Amino acid sequence: MTVSAPVLPTTGRLRPLSLADVRITGGFWGRGQDVNARATLGHCLRWMGREGWLDNFRAAAGGRIARDRRGREFADSEAYKLLEAAAWERARPGGVPPADAAGVAALVAAAQEPDGYLGTAFGRAGQAPRYSDLEWGHELYCAGHLIQAGVAQARSGGGPLVGVARRLADHVCDTFGADAPGPGLCGHPEIEPALVELARETGEQRYLDQAALFLDRRGHGALRRAEFGAGYFQDDVPLRAATVFRGHAVRALYLAAGAVDVAVETGDDELLAAVVRQWEATVARRTYLTGGMGSHHLDESFGEDFQLPPDRSYCETCAGVASVMLAWRLLLATGQPRFADLAERTLFNVVAASPAEDGRSFFYTNTLHRRGRSTVPDPEAASPRAASGLRAPWFAVSCCPTNVARLLASLGGYLATTDETGVQLHQYADAELTAALPDGRRLRLRVATGYPVDGTVSVQVTEAPGGPVTLSLRVPEWARAGAVLTAPDGAGRPVAPGVAAVTREFRPGDEVRLALPMAPRWVAPDPRIDAVRGTLAVERGPLVLCAESVDLPPGHEVDALRVDPRVPPADENGRVVVRAELAGAADLAWPYPPHQGPDAPRAPAEDGFRAVLVPYHSWANRGPSTMRVWLPARDPDRGGTRCVSGTEEGTAEGDAARS
Amino acid sequence: MTVSAPVLPTTGRLRPLSLADVRITGGFWGRGQDVNARATLGHCLRWMGREGWLDNFRAAAGGRIARDRRGREFADSEAYKLLEAAAWERARPGGVPPADAAGVAALVAAAQEPDGYLGTAFGRAGQAPRYSDLEWGHELYCAGHLIQAGVAQARSGGGPLVGVARRLADHVCDTFGADAPGPGLCGHPEIEPALVELARETGEQRYLDQAALFLDRRGHGALRRAEFGAGYFQDDVPLRAATVFRGHAVRALYLAAGAVDVAVETGDDELLAAVVRQWEATVARRTYLTGGMGSHHLDESFGEDFQLPPDRSYCETCAGVASVMLAWRLLLATGQPRFADLAERTLFNVVAASPAEDGRSFFYTNTLHRRGRSTVPDPEAASPRAASGLRAPWFAVSCCPTNVARLLASLGGYLATTDETGVQLHQYADAELTAALPDGRRLRLRVATGYPVDGTVSVQVTEAPGGPVTLSLRVPEWARAGAVLTAPDGAGRPVAPGVAAVTREFRPGDEVRLALPMAPRWVAPDPRIDAVRGTLAVERGPLVLCAESVDLPPGHEVDALRVDPRVPPADENGRVVVRAELAGAADLAWPYPPHQGPDAPRAPAEDGFRAVLVPYHSWANRGPSTMRVWLPARDPDRGGTRCVSGTEEGTAEGDAARS
Repeated sequence: MTVSAPVLPTTGRLRPLSLADVRITGGFWGRGQDVNARATLGHCLRWMGREGWLDNFRAAAGGRIARDRRGREFADSEAYKLLEAAAWERARPGGVPPADAAGVAALVAAAQEPDGYLGTAFGRAGQAPRYSDLEWGHELYCAGHLIQAGVAQARSGGGPLVGVARRLADHVCDTFGADAPGPGLCGHPEIEPALVELARETGEQRYLDQAALFLDRRGHGALRRAEFGAGYFQDDVPLRAATVFRGHAVRALYLAAGAVDVAVETGDDELLAAVVRQWEATVARRTYLTGGMGSHHLDESFGEDFQLPPDRSYCETCAGVASVMLAWRLLLATGQPRFADLAERTLFNVVAASPAEDGRSFFYTNTLHRRGRSTVPDPEAASPRAASGLRAPWFAVSCCPTNVARLLASLGGYLATTDETGVQLHQYADAELTAALPDGRRLRLRVATGYPVDGTVSVQVTEAPGGPVTLSLRVPEWARAGAVLTAPDGAGRPVAPGVAAVTREFRPGDEVRLALPMAPRWVAPDPRIDAVRGTLAVERGPLVLCAESVDLPPGHEVDALRVDPRVPPADENGRVVVRAELAGAADLAWPYPPHQGPDAPRAPAEDGFRAVLVPYHSWANRGPSTMRVWLPARDPDRGGTRCVSGTEEGTAEGDAARS
Repeated sequence: MTVSAPVLPTTGRLRPLSLADVRITGGFWGRGQDVNARATLGHCLRWMGREGWLDNFRAAAGGRIARDRRGREFADSEAYKLLEAAAWERARPGGVPPADAAGVAALVAAAQEPDGYLGTAFGRAGQAPRYSDLEWGHELYCAGHLIQAGVAQARSGGGPLVGVARRLADHVCDTFGADAPGPGLCGHPEIEPALVELARETGEQRYLDQAALFLDRRGHGALRRAEFGAGYFQDDVPLRAATVFRGHAVRALYLAAGAVDVAVETGDDELLAAVVRQWEATVARRTYLTGGMGSHHLDESFGEDFQLPPDRSYCETCAGVASVMLAWRLLLATGQPRFADLAERTLFNVVAASPAEDGRSFFYTNTLHRRGRSTVPDPEAASPRAASGLRAPWFAVSCCPTNVARLLASLGGYLATTDETGVQLHQYADAELTAALPDGRRLRLRVATGYPVDGTVSVQVTEAPGGPVTLSLRVPEWARAGAVLTAPDGAGRPVAPGVAAVTREFRPGDEVRLALPMAPRWVAPDPRIDAVRGTLAVERGPLVLCAESVDLPPGHEVDALRVDPRVPPADENGRVVVRAELAGAADLAWPYPPHQGPDAPRAPAEDGFRAVLVPYHSWANRGPSTMRVWLPARDPDRGGTRCVSGTEEGTAEGDAARS
């Protein structure tokens, strides 16, 4: 029986379930999958058609491509990612594959050349030669996405791209084998995990070897140096020697995913340990509270350690998707729940933040702080990618919408795994799961939860094998106190973050219940993160919250907010509120006055009010607004900051007197 | 008699002195001018030759340009700025004009076409047509710099570019008059101030009208929209309606300079007031402590109000030069010392920071915080512009070295002015000045000072006219208490920031002495600047100081520094020291733990030490280092940050226990 899963290692600590065996029945992710299937997939196809990216395949097949091609050099990949999403839609119970996916797949297949090459941007008469710009041409990147689409079709009932993918992979191996001239690798990793997945699907060793070869070639400065430096391409340091993710975030994360795939299939523990080490350093020092990665707009890259400015957080949606893909691979390889912790954080606070509630507009970047109200994007035009004030329907570089689409379509595959002892639940959603244990036994579960709003997760056994089975539930890292696990025998026991397990001979009707502490809580930033010193954020369950100007008294923006950290955030009938006050209006003084010292008079206390916070993923669904996640504390460090209020204008006199 | 000055308004509150009448005799700026003349000018010429940018003019004249052209579309302008610098060198007493300047000027002149067009990137056979890319082609920008070079030659004894400039300006007016098709303006302002200067030099009204026309055309979205938005080009809002500088910083500042020029020459007080209003808002909300402007790397642009991250400060050197040019124009127009205040801050902390001590490498961007040690730039290759770890000899986009060169060569012109009442000193340097008063009388002064290290400025009258004259000295905004002015009668009196004046009938030998308070002082950031909350900086006189890792105990980087704001910075035999401690080593914990609350245990006190600070402009002259201007306070806000030290690892347990 085909297992339909986006990642299918042949070895590792945990095994994925088939998408066909997981039905998300409702709740947060049920709605997300429904909107994705019913709105986003068709929306993406319409925009690709409108922008001419589908016609590119027609023009390539028809010999008109040099004249007619539209879009950036990587536009082909959007069709491939969409077709991957369509395949997962076909595989998942209740999925809604788009009607025209077959037509698009046929267009793509028709554009493949006799030698297996596929791509509309290079190599035909009137175009630059194939592989003449490995740094920026994205040819192997596109090939990787085509292969992923082919693998997805193979794992969801077949389709024309299965053969297309094999022929393309053979062409890649023929061209980029051990004797390949030039740098012999692509500026944008993606072919690496794709080739490993195809090797897994076909049993073809050659694809795995080629992926390993691509990995080994990187890190020696072979690519022509970009203005951003070799680190942009991860071509500065070999994979095994690197200590942290760096450079272009999506490139770095796809590369790491491919490295895990190769390490797992070849038993290369050194390589796996290198990726884990880099992941640890990156999560500790280069990751935003939301799980978002990437703090430089210029090159869409990671910044230095602790360089995490909230108002310039890039946090590309695709980097969030890639981080989930990587974390899932590391979870399967190691079984460690910390990888599922980061995946949860990223899913709820990056991936879920990108699409609008209607699934027809998207964030490309996911800032943690929006200072100025943006204008409304043109609904009829592709938007600049880095303008993150409001979601836009499409982008000139439109990698994110289809990336979200393929992840949401396959999300059921990320909920649970099996091993020799039983079943592990990693992510919580209303769902029905059928877990085939390695020994052939079968356990069926029904998960009922109001997660992430409600913290109770009920897992009911609906079909049980004979003999003992271990049911493991992840206790999230944020549930540092107060989580309680109740086994079928009825006795609740406190459980710590990590894994809480119940081992017994289950019977149908048995219920395991995990109650997670859902009181909103202050979190404080590491003092080495300069950009958010003196601020706090609020989390509730797995959700990062934010203040949005539409919830403030009229005429105020979020930058005026000062919160009182002595008063815990409160849940008032489902609304989270914090004690806050609003700083006064801006003045025109030189903003760096002499330090007043600890005995300087303080601004008079103002009347506080209860400021409402909302889930970060939900912001910017109510028109233009300002927003911030990190909230300055009301009672600032007497050493380093002054209090500004409407009534204190002392610092203005210096300049004002001289104007 | 020709007045040799970079800006020569026909009206306005103050009048510039001629460069020929100001001799900077030594000290900080004397050394700066000397290095500029003896090292930088020749260095720039050599690099332009080496990169092929001078050959472009030969190739254009020889009909080979489409095949042979090297460099970016604006490469011509570097030769023009260098020739402008050479002209000022010729004008200033003691100047050292480069020997080969005449040859370069002849090359340029030979490339001018019969109809006056000049430029090597467009319009010849095999190139894109003239003005086919007004957004990005920089043709009028280059024309502006040529005209400035021509004006500089006219004001320093003449030269071939005087006629070249007129013919080019006539061509521009013929082409871009009232009926010009298309957007009719350049994506990069610069032609505007240039045309006004040429109008001033020639008396030709047409040039002034054309400059005004270019100004009026901007702000209506006529330029093709860039991914960065119309604000990048200042094409989003008309000049008169704008409230703050925005978009690409150099573009915004050159445009504002041109607007002041037009406003002054046409008596347009509304336009002048609009620029002043924008300048005020920009200085209060979008300017770094150093005077640097521009906080976005992606588009080299201003950020939103108070978006001033020190570790991503762009602060392009050219924006510093442009800010000084603008401030000087506003000072001449209004007489207000606040403009000279910002010029001083920018000269000492941006312009002076760019060149290395030997004048042969430069910062393109001027970050206020360098987290990681950079590698040493390749001395034989043009560097990326945004890598600001160490100064580089040249850049692919190399606008900054020649811009610094032309400003330093003409710096004498920025020291003093005259009006009906007498002479005003704005910037302090060892110098001999001859001030021709409007009524024909003459006052000669000798300024002696150890500024900016020493705060005493002695102004000795060496030649005095009959009758009363007012000698005005700027008291800098940072001298908020303790400045003392001593008139020739010997009585010192306290003076406040602004202008301190002595009116009398001076005699040769009379001395006016200004003593400025030079104790180092803490300054604190406006709390609305999120990125530096909880930190302090130290200034001493006009200098911003910084901590550099080479002054720390071995093995430490500046990000570990925590300063004690209760102890004032001290001057220990010329070295500024602050009380500080070093935070412990980094760990791998999730960096956003639960807030510990005000009663959480604090890290044990560590032994403090005296950390040495150095002038910001001098950093990175001692090899790779880390550096920061804003220093976190040791005793952080109990509400918002935790203390990290080597002995406190409590926050690490959560994740560590689960690895």
